[in-house]
Amino acid sequence: MKPLQRFGLVVITASALASLAAVKPASLPPETVRTATELRNRIAAGSRAAEWVRDITDLAGPRMPGSPGDRAAVAVTVSMLKAQGFSNVRAEKVVVPVWERGVETGEVLSPVRQSLVLTALGGSIGTPSGGLEGEIVRFASLEELALAGSSVRGKIAFIDRPTARTSDGSGYSSAGDVRGRGPSAAARHGAIGLLIRSIGTDADRFPHTGGMRYEPDVPKIPAAALAAPDAALLTRLLARGPVRVKFTLGCRTLADGESANVIGDIPGRETPKEIVLLGAHLDSWDLGTGALDDAAGCGIVVEAARQISQLPKRPRRTIRVVLFANEEHGLKGGKAYAEAHAAELADHVAAMEADLGQGPPLGFSWNAGRSAEAMLKAIAGLLAPIGADALVEYDVGGADLIYLLPSGIPSLGLSLDATDYFDYHHTANDNYDRIDPKILDQSTAAAATLAYVLAEIPTPLERIPPEKRVLPSWAR
Amino acid sequence: MKPLQRFGLVVITASALASLAAVKPASLPPETVRTATELRNRIAAGSRAAEWVRDITDLAGPRMPGSPGDRAAVAVTVSMLKAQGFSNVRAEKVVVPVWERGVETGEVLSPVRQSLVLTALGGSIGTPSGGLEGEIVRFASLEELALAGSSVRGKIAFIDRPTARTSDGSGYSSAGDVRGRGPSAAARHGAIGLLIRSIGTDADRFPHTGGMRYEPDVPKIPAAALAAPDAALLTRLLARGPVRVKFTLGCRTLADGESANVIGDIPGRETPKEIVLLGAHLDSWDLGTGALDDAAGCGIVVEAARQISQLPKRPRRTIRVVLFANEEHGLKGGKAYAEAHAAELADHVAAMEADLGQGPPLGFSWNAGRSAEAMLKAIAGLLAPIGADALVEYDVGGADLIYLLPSGIPSLGLSLDATDYFDYHHTANDNYDRIDPKILDQSTAAAATLAYVLAEIPTPLERIPPEKRVLPSWAR
Repeated sequence: MKPLQRFGLVVITASALASLAAVKPASLPPETVRTATELRNRIAAGSRAAEWVRDITDLAGPRMPGSPGDRAAVAVTVSMLKAQGFSNVRAEKVVVPVWERGVETGEVLSPVRQSLVLTALGGSIGTPSGGLEGEIVRFASLEELALAGSSVRGKIAFIDRPTARTSDGSGYSSAGDVRGRGPSAAARHGAIGLLIRSIGTDADRFPHTGGMRYEPDVPKIPAAALAAPDAALLTRLLARGPVRVKFTLGCRTLADGESANVIGDIPGRETPKEIVLLGAHLDSWDLGTGALDDAAGCGIVVEAARQISQLPKRPRRTIRVVLFANEEHGLKGGKAYAEAHAAELADHVAAMEADLGQGPPLGFSWNAGRSAEAMLKAIAGLLAPIGADALVEYDVGGADLIYLLPSGIPSLGLSLDATDYFDYHHTANDNYDRIDPKILDQSTAAAATLAYVLAEIPTPLERIPPEKRVLPSWAR
Repeated sequence: MKPLQRFGLVVITASALASLAAVKPASLPPETVRTATELRNRIAAGSRAAEWVRDITDLAGPRMPGSPGDRAAVAVTVSMLKAQGFSNVRAEKVVVPVWERGVETGEVLSPVRQSLVLTALGGSIGTPSGGLEGEIVRFASLEELALAGSSVRGKIAFIDRPTARTSDGSGYSSAGDVRGRGPSAAARHGAIGLLIRSIGTDADRFPHTGGMRYEPDVPKIPAAALAAPDAALLTRLLARGPVRVKFTLGCRTLADGESANVIGDIPGRETPKEIVLLGAHLDSWDLGTGALDDAAGCGIVVEAARQISQLPKRPRRTIRVVLFANEEHGLKGGKAYAEAHAAELADHVAAMEADLGQGPPLGFSWNAGRSAEAMLKAIAGLLAPIGADALVEYDVGGADLIYLLPSGIPSLGLSLDATDYFDYHHTANDNYDRIDPKILDQSTAAAATLAYVLAEIPTPLERIPPEKRVLPSWAR
């Protein structure tokens, strides 16, 4: 629990829950406990997880869907899985949207001239090639923008909402709407463009990109994120009077391209048709090399599965690693997997995703039938020695797993300490140097322990009840 | 002493020194002690120092010598000093070298394609417009490069030397030669270009620029600094085999331009001809807005002098603020001041510079006649309550003061805690957001206390003895 205490959080541990709640941990077979404990300890003492992250980031680089780096990452990880002895290694085609960034410039024109560091939001239209110029109107939130009336008509909206630093990513979740819905919200009030303070927790001069979606019934306007210091500059200058800015975005959407979900199996010894899926996403934004988002998750799940494959006695069921295409830009990989494997989904007994950086691990989120709780508490107990025994009920274990929801597959998310994650997330500063192999080892140990037990226990977890299998509106 | 203890440093405090060394603190007149103490406490409780930093960085922006921002900074600070009641406010012309940056790109060509974040060293020649391409040869230090033989002939030298994090800037001092002397050292071995790991303590994807000097007897080659993660990438790729890179620098030196030293006085009540000079430099590099380097120093000295001007009884001697032109690019401002004021230098009783960020203050360095030590210990005693009582003997109080050395003017440097300073120094990340007004207030309190006492004590400090007035070779 050290990482949690370090940040002063109040977390209900599995043991505290057990004493409070009616549900007691299930009892696991002694051999399962022994093997899981040895597996956890071995990985926590040192693993190759960081090596896989390094290979993805160094050999493929940035991995925007459909880009050369994305294709390189598919080749690199197919080779990696084959070399590490995975079975049925394949790259399953996924059609992806292709968006390219192009030139990006920004400046304050008056009351003084200053350069602005900004980057287009993913999916934004470009500006005219000579740039977009206008007076800015500041809003502290989307709620304030909703009350804009005609104040922003013909001008550039500027939403200056900070992102709270939290260990569970909740600060990002609550700020993220500014990016996702801001452009159309601003256009609805007649704005000609949108600048937002980056959704991120740092104060560095890196803008944070990330996805946005235009609503169909309003004009599309160019939208970009300012680095935090540049947003702060605009706010200080506005205290002196009107501020005019100009920015140029060369971004554009091209024809759809091709990418792939990279898949490899560690076949189960008894019921290989039954699958525990371990997922992460292989694509990244283009500004950095996406070491934390989400090469780290790829490293965690590849290494967790590889370590399980080295056990003297493999688990009952198959462990399947899926490195999803195109999480960042529309979840096409997750959707393609659900479609291509529709016939197998009834045999998927659980799916876990790692997509919140490197850790340290805090525990896991879960969504399954109610009777699963006792077993998950037992697994949490096995993770207590590495501080990863926090259990949280949540709707889905990771964005790539959303299309598995209608099948009722128990959905697990590796909870990783995200206190610093949003300092780097979606910026040029997300690179291999951010990786601490020792921390990644702890997260890998947690993922492997969870996966091993789920693949070994006699009876799979109870599936998500039918009434909870409804896709959220954003995924439909 | 809290800021010092925080970083685990061993510092000999003034009181410890007094008990160890023969020299006892001088005794100060009670009225001087009372006034200095009140001044220190008032400023430490809250001052306008950060406001001056904000005005310089927001209204002038980056301030490369001879650039529009540099001219704006002269205008902004002349207005500032006039508005705050300084006397004899003037901008004294300084001819400065003008160098512009232009386009900057970098990429790894093989074994994989990756972009590289880099920036030209100040004063570098540009590359051909199509870029400079070659295999890189890595050296861990200048010493290793000196043993290169012909290994780097026709190739691009890559010096990958880290900068140690220290509170006193010593890590920077010892690494700085890689930047200053690296280009000609590499050219001497036949290199066609130089890439260095940025001289800086961060692991962020910001390259650090800074001055360099070509030696006259070897070819000039283009020289750039890589962001730390990009240097680390090259080193990792070299472990896989040969690495080819390409970089483009559009930088060039233009005809000399014009800047100015900005000067304002707080006239002394008894001997106004005698001057205590408080200096900082107004210019900055171009990537950020130079809030820490050195708008912070400007804010400290302007506010220290302004606070002294508000005392019911001004000190005996004149306090003169000098915001020097062109520290970064050849010390032309310091030289111009020494030349223009040659006739007055005998009446300069002390000169202090603030050029190491914002603080907190640790004490001050000094260079003066031996008998000055007792008085400086007495002043250090006044700074102990704000943790700024460390005294260090050093050659000069700041780079801008170097040309005052031949006149023997006692030279003082405000010692500021530089533990984090070289994370931001000379990068795009050195902006107003880095400023903590409360910390800046402490540093201003230290500077004002020191300046006040030196301007008030009956007898000035003993001057630097003639044998120690020799300019170092780099300043000749």
